[in-house]
Amino acid sequence: MYDRQQILSELVQSASSKIVLLVMDGIGDAPGERGKTPLQVAKKPNLDWVAKESDLGQTIPVMHGVTPGSGPGHLALFGYDPVKYQIGRGILEALGSDVPVGEKDVVARANFATIENGIVVDRRAARPSTEECAKVVEKLAKAIQSIEDVKVSFYPGKEHRFVVKLTGEDLDDRLTDADPQKEGKAFVYTQALVVEAERTARIVNKLLDEMRKVLSDEPKMNCALMRGFSKYPKLPQFPAVYKLRAAAIATYPMYRGIAKLIGMEIVRTGDTIREEFETVKNVWKDYDFFYVHVKKTDSYGEDGNFDAKVHIIEEVDEALPILLDLQPDVLVVTGDHSTPTILKAHSWHPVPLMIHSRYARKGLSKAFDEFECARGTLGTIYAIDVMGLALAHALRLEKFGA
Amino acid sequence: MYDRQQILSELVQSASSKIVLLVMDGIGDAPGERGKTPLQVAKKPNLDWVAKESDLGQTIPVMHGVTPGSGPGHLALFGYDPVKYQIGRGILEALGSDVPVGEKDVVARANFATIENGIVVDRRAARPSTEECAKVVEKLAKAIQSIEDVKVSFYPGKEHRFVVKLTGEDLDDRLTDADPQKEGKAFVYTQALVVEAERTARIVNKLLDEMRKVLSDEPKMNCALMRGFSKYPKLPQFPAVYKLRAAAIATYPMYRGIAKLIGMEIVRTGDTIREEFETVKNVWKDYDFFYVHVKKTDSYGEDGNFDAKVHIIEEVDEALPILLDLQPDVLVVTGDHSTPTILKAHSWHPVPLMIHSRYARKGLSKAFDEFECARGTLGTIYAIDVMGLALAHALRLEKFGA
Repeated sequence: MYDRQQILSELVQSASSKIVLLVMDGIGDAPGERGKTPLQVAKKPNLDWVAKESDLGQTIPVMHGVTPGSGPGHLALFGYDPVKYQIGRGILEALGSDVPVGEKDVVARANFATIENGIVVDRRAARPSTEECAKVVEKLAKAIQSIEDVKVSFYPGKEHRFVVKLTGEDLDDRLTDADPQKEGKAFVYTQALVVEAERTARIVNKLLDEMRKVLSDEPKMNCALMRGFSKYPKLPQFPAVYKLRAAAIATYPMYRGIAKLIGMEIVRTGDTIREEFETVKNVWKDYDFFYVHVKKTDSYGEDGNFDAKVHIIEEVDEALPILLDLQPDVLVVTGDHSTPTILKAHSWHPVPLMIHSRYARKGLSKAFDEFECARGTLGTIYAIDVMGLALAHALRLEKFGA
Repeated sequence: MYDRQQILSELVQSASSKIVLLVMDGIGDAPGERGKTPLQVAKKPNLDWVAKESDLGQTIPVMHGVTPGSGPGHLALFGYDPVKYQIGRGILEALGSDVPVGEKDVVARANFATIENGIVVDRRAARPSTEECAKVVEKLAKAIQSIEDVKVSFYPGKEHRFVVKLTGEDLDDRLTDADPQKEGKAFVYTQALVVEAERTARIVNKLLDEMRKVLSDEPKMNCALMRGFSKYPKLPQFPAVYKLRAAAIATYPMYRGIAKLIGMEIVRTGDTIREEFETVKNVWKDYDFFYVHVKKTDSYGEDGNFDAKVHIIEEVDEALPILLDLQPDVLVVTGDHSTPTILKAHSWHPVPLMIHSRYARKGLSKAFDEFECARGTLGTIYAIDVMGLALAHALRLEKFGA
């Protein structure tokens, strides 16, 4: 298939129309033995009203059968081919921990482990508390500021996890994981995958030794493993590609981070859905495109908490008039992937989608749920096609050919 | 994606079956505030009877969200990748004006403009009448027959528009537009984009000077601009690719032109839909494939004239028995794109499609309209896939693999 984003970017024209992309993370579900999905059970008069006035469909984030992480799920929605643009896990972990990352940085996911006689016996160091983790990370940060001419920074995460950032000239992320992956195996150093990465490999391996020394008196957290080395990825910048002033409104750092990677402006917001929607209202004049992220539909999906997921959908529905009153030219409501409560995990299921505009082929659908979406006017499409549809409904694309 | 046309061409086998492709230009619509589309409102017992006996679906001409011109919309229906085969605007303008174009020609869209002190002050020369345009084009044609050894021909168009054709050896169309695009800017000459086009650029620029001289005493139309230089595109020839003797029946020159580009035979016909269908009947024995084009569904869509669009659909329906009585093995009814009356323009909306043959999975659908098609047995497909389905229903494709 040709490069859809490239084709769109050649057709994009300026306009004064406004687009809201409301992402209810992990919104899609599967009925299981209960027989209904949270979207079917939730009382959501506003979302259902929008459905009656919208084009409905369902999206495939990456490929049929493929379960996406949050990175690919979002990139696809923003019109980026998620197979072409793969973001390293180190970067996503860093973004998720609100770690600032720049072009001279290589970041990696790190975790405390327990080592005995050179053998990694527990890759999670008996799962320390998040507080313990922070304490030991601080100890590392005090002891180690740099290796050779490369600056080293440490950022604590949850339980045994933390992030390591290296800052320096000509660092290279083409490195193997310094992680045996399985318990009962020997500790391993990183290796350069290309000649250009040999210096970075040497620095990382010196750092691994330094950390072992600093941690040597810890009973459990006596070793650190590192994996997912990644540089700041160079991605086409959303505002330039689509000629849109774009704002990202999200309560969780990872989603702000992904938006920042593609050049969206991050707008500070509160913790609740209502506060997020109010933020859209407050900056309505300053942007053309508003990415609004609702996290908890996914969180409760991952917990397998059906009733809580229903409740979050109802909370979105109650706050929705704040967005509707702004009368966006285009309102897209969808998710970045499905998170069925019966799976307690992200899944491959198609994701419900609706696109509201005055040009929608409205009238066919009666409600916003997985089944109405499966039989909607848009059919089953790839998530990467959502941006084209949003731009089209906003009358922001020229005709292709004569 | 693999080359679908190539795969089909390797599977094509001869047969005696006949295929009719009825293209109702711009047929798809959107309900807007009226709540229904012209296809839903029109009384069309024959089309609805066909729908009950057909596979229904909807097509995406180029890409979700992308609004196609007539060229890409038709090429896709004929099984040509519309992104791979992009036809220059000069050629389409020439075809639309019934200008004969051959392999030694370069054509360009031209328009009269008003120039003052080297500045283009009106790119449309105050929109002359079509008659005035024809008169001044004749003056050009009398004064200029050739530049160096290249023959020059002029063809009048509507208002300020005309077509220029250059005929000679080794002409090259890789030229920039000789058009400042905006008013208030200086007149510009063409430039060669590659070394091979330098001679053609020189000839075009001499022609531009000659035209200025001839037009110097015109009060408004005192300059000509040229853009969209294009050669006759080399496209795979439809009859050879699909092993089909193919006839094109169309009342408008542009559609005959597109059909001619891919090697269909143009059959003369009258001005009405009934006459077009009678033409199919008259040449029924001579061809295997009949492309029949109905223009006015698009024209009234572009005018925003809902009732007139309804009426044209009813006119097609009334004449349809002429085609049905021929008992084609396969009857495909679709459009090249949607032209919603609320938009008064081509659009990106999926296009209704039905395929009638004795092998259809008939029984699901009750009528031919956007919503029944959205929920039909074929789903949402790319327009480029229509030819494969038509050939399959005509039992003209061998099995793929053993």
